[in-house]
Amino acid sequence: MMRLAEIGATARGGVCRLALTDLDRVARDQFLSWVRELGCEISIDTIGNIVARRPGADPARLPVMTGSHLDTQPTGGKFDGVYGVMAGLEVMRTLNDKGIRTAAPLELVVWTNEEGTRFSPIMMGSGVFTGQLSLDDMLKKQDRDGVSVQSALAAIGYDGKRNPGHPVGAYFEAHIEQGPILENEGISIGVVTGAMGQRWYDIEVIGLESHAGTTPMDSRRDALLAASRLTVRVNEIALEKGGNTRSTVGYMDVHPNSRNSIPGRVHLTVEFRGPEENMLAAMEQELNQACDRYSEPGKLDFSIRRVADIKPQPFFPPLVDVVRNAAQELSYTHMEILSGAGHDAVYMAKAGPAAMIFVPCKDGLSHNELEDAKKEDLEAGTNVLLRSMLCAAEM
Amino acid sequence: MMRLAEIGATARGGVCRLALTDLDRVARDQFLSWVRELGCEISIDTIGNIVARRPGADPARLPVMTGSHLDTQPTGGKFDGVYGVMAGLEVMRTLNDKGIRTAAPLELVVWTNEEGTRFSPIMMGSGVFTGQLSLDDMLKKQDRDGVSVQSALAAIGYDGKRNPGHPVGAYFEAHIEQGPILENEGISIGVVTGAMGQRWYDIEVIGLESHAGTTPMDSRRDALLAASRLTVRVNEIALEKGGNTRSTVGYMDVHPNSRNSIPGRVHLTVEFRGPEENMLAAMEQELNQACDRYSEPGKLDFSIRRVADIKPQPFFPPLVDVVRNAAQELSYTHMEILSGAGHDAVYMAKAGPAAMIFVPCKDGLSHNELEDAKKEDLEAGTNVLLRSMLCAAEM
Ligand SMILES: NC(=O)NCCC(=O)O
Ligand SMILES: NC(=O)NCCC(=O)O
Repeated sequence: MMRLAEIGATARGGVCRLALTDLDRVARDQFLSWVRELGCEISIDTIGNIVARRPGADPARLPVMTGSHLDTQPTGGKFDGVYGVMAGLEVMRTLNDKGIRTAAPLELVVWTNEEGTRFSPIMMGSGVFTGQLSLDDMLKKQDRDGVSVQSALAAIGYDGKRNPGHPVGAYFEAHIEQGPILENEGISIGVVTGAMGQRWYDIEVIGLESHAGTTPMDSRRDALLAASRLTVRVNEIALEKGGNTRSTVGYMDVHPNSRNSIPGRVHLTVEFRGPEENMLAAMEQELNQACDRYSEPGKLDFSIRRVADIKPQPFFPPLVDVVRNAAQELSYTHMEILSGAGHDAVYMAKAGPAAMIFVPCKDGLSHNELEDAKKEDLEAGTNVLLRSMLCAAEM
Repeated sequence: MMRLAEIGATARGGVCRLALTDLDRVARDQFLSWVRELGCEISIDTIGNIVARRPGADPARLPVMTGSHLDTQPTGGKFDGVYGVMAGLEVMRTLNDKGIRTAAPLELVVWTNEEGTRFSPIMMGSGVFTGQLSLDDMLKKQDRDGVSVQSALAAIGYDGKRNPGHPVGAYFEAHIEQGPILENEGISIGVVTGAMGQRWYDIEVIGLESHAGTTPMDSRRDALLAASRLTVRVNEIALEKGGNTRSTVGYMDVHPNSRNSIPGRVHLTVEFRGPEENMLAAMEQELNQACDRYSEPGKLDFSIRRVADIKPQPFFPPLVDVVRNAAQELSYTHMEILSGAGHDAVYMAKAGPAAMIFVPCKDGLSHNELEDAKKEDLEAGTNVLLRSMLCAAEM
């Protein structure tokens, strides 16, 4: 038996377990051995999602599902995603220990490639499961080395046979908040009302590489200088817009990346988040204007491509109430919260009833090897998940 | 027989032949076979410089040397460095064909690692040859993969036995200009009066990586945003200073470089060039001030390290006159020019008489796969080199 935090552990206490790598396979294998022990029926679909099913008493009832993901950021933590899977596992173990049979079947899912780091877009498994993303398109997506999702799935033996997607009565996902709000407020349970929208972009800046020593300042076509101007501007866009919006340049790749050559080409990414669709549309307009402003016809060109567009998504109010009531009945401190991160629950909410449970994380840190969370909070979130699932499975 | 432009040829018509790689070995081997054919005596020193010697009539005379380098930028051209070696080879071939024996011996040198791309600093071979750089320090320099100069030299079999450095009566180097001036003026020969000074820096920006979706704008510690601000500022520094100075950020490496993580660490390089030492000192002060301005104690730190400091270097006026007279006598159009690039001739000028000959290159482009030059100009430069060397070898 391995602890998941050991699989891809980094020197600084985090985890690097990119989607569909061999480390992801090891984590998936460990998960399978746990749910097999519980007597679950296991199915793997063609995008590699794993569903472990605990049969219910009433064959007519739709399953109540929970889960999350086992892939991580390149310098990720031990909790992002993994917590939701382990919380679901603990729910099933508890019910087994107590010999409780629910009316509805329970399902525990591990979604493929939630992080979107190795293969873009994010939330690939749940996107395909809910019909929001095309299976064929996703199987063809490639990582930076040209390896496709399809061949990566086959390489680790998780190219399942089942068609992705089946009706789900209720979907719950427990997750660390990944931000500072619950910790700052001193509250254990976030009753998540919905998730912000996101728009992601790939931008290429084309200048002309030339010698840094011999090219006079006035005849340069410096792609990195233009990319840097854009990066500074992108940051201003969310600051100006306000209303809890966010804008980030997270990735930049410089060519030829040699200290005495003027960079001729830069690839960078931009992402915007915000609670309302019209905010995102306005931010996109600002981005286009900035690219226009910093381009110089015939000297510096920007090409911009939107690669993800996820609408703001409210969760299903009756299920949000189920979570709130569970926290209330268990006497945990709780508050409503909006998710800034995307989650598989967001796609699930587009296809059926879904809700989420957040717990605080240390210093609001996530996508960082120092990611951490308190045992009591993790336990509280798991108890709220158990109670919410029981409620939905008997409802 | 291979043409040097074929060794490491890139799809876009350039050359990628980094110092002390196996491709560099192939180019060196080809060079050796050419100079052996001419009957030269060959010696290789402990930093890998190759000297091919054509004996003179008078054993008391110091050698007249020419040469340049065979390593290239990652996306370099066919002419930078290689032209100077081939021009020297052509000089020797011509003298052999005509059966001319000079009073002074002639030497043709291939310097190790002029470009400084794989191993910093630039002009390593000539720096060690002239005692400006320490042999022991240079042998320990490592590339990004941790391979040392010493082991790279041994791996390609160019870890010679000779101690670097011997007296040289006159050193000439022919080179493409690598900038737009001669082409713009419609002139064939640049009589190079000296080279600008250079200061190079390694800068590390340390913030804190966190989740791009959940970290509010006011609690970010975004290292890429700070690095971008610095990049914009670095460009302004030379623009404000004027006087033919230059400032460039050529390299940027972002960590973790994931689109939905706020970058926690960025490594970038800065370089300044200018004709006068006091200009460079003032630019360095501006750089330090900018780092101070963009740092936020406890949130964003800059660490800055100067990794190269090459003083502005005039060439030896009597040798500059030799070049001017040669161009004059051969009726080539010519003008005085200052080199913005570093060259091995700059180190040679610190240890003895040295001068350079520039020829125009297409669109002033260098450190670019599209680097090109006209046959007539290359021939003119070679003729000026021949005449200058003959003059110095008989003087
Ligand atoms: N929860 C999470 O980290 N998801 C990754 C996708 C995102 O960037 O929102
Ligand atoms: N000539 C040349 O490209 N030298 C490389 C060193 C420099 O950047 O000046």
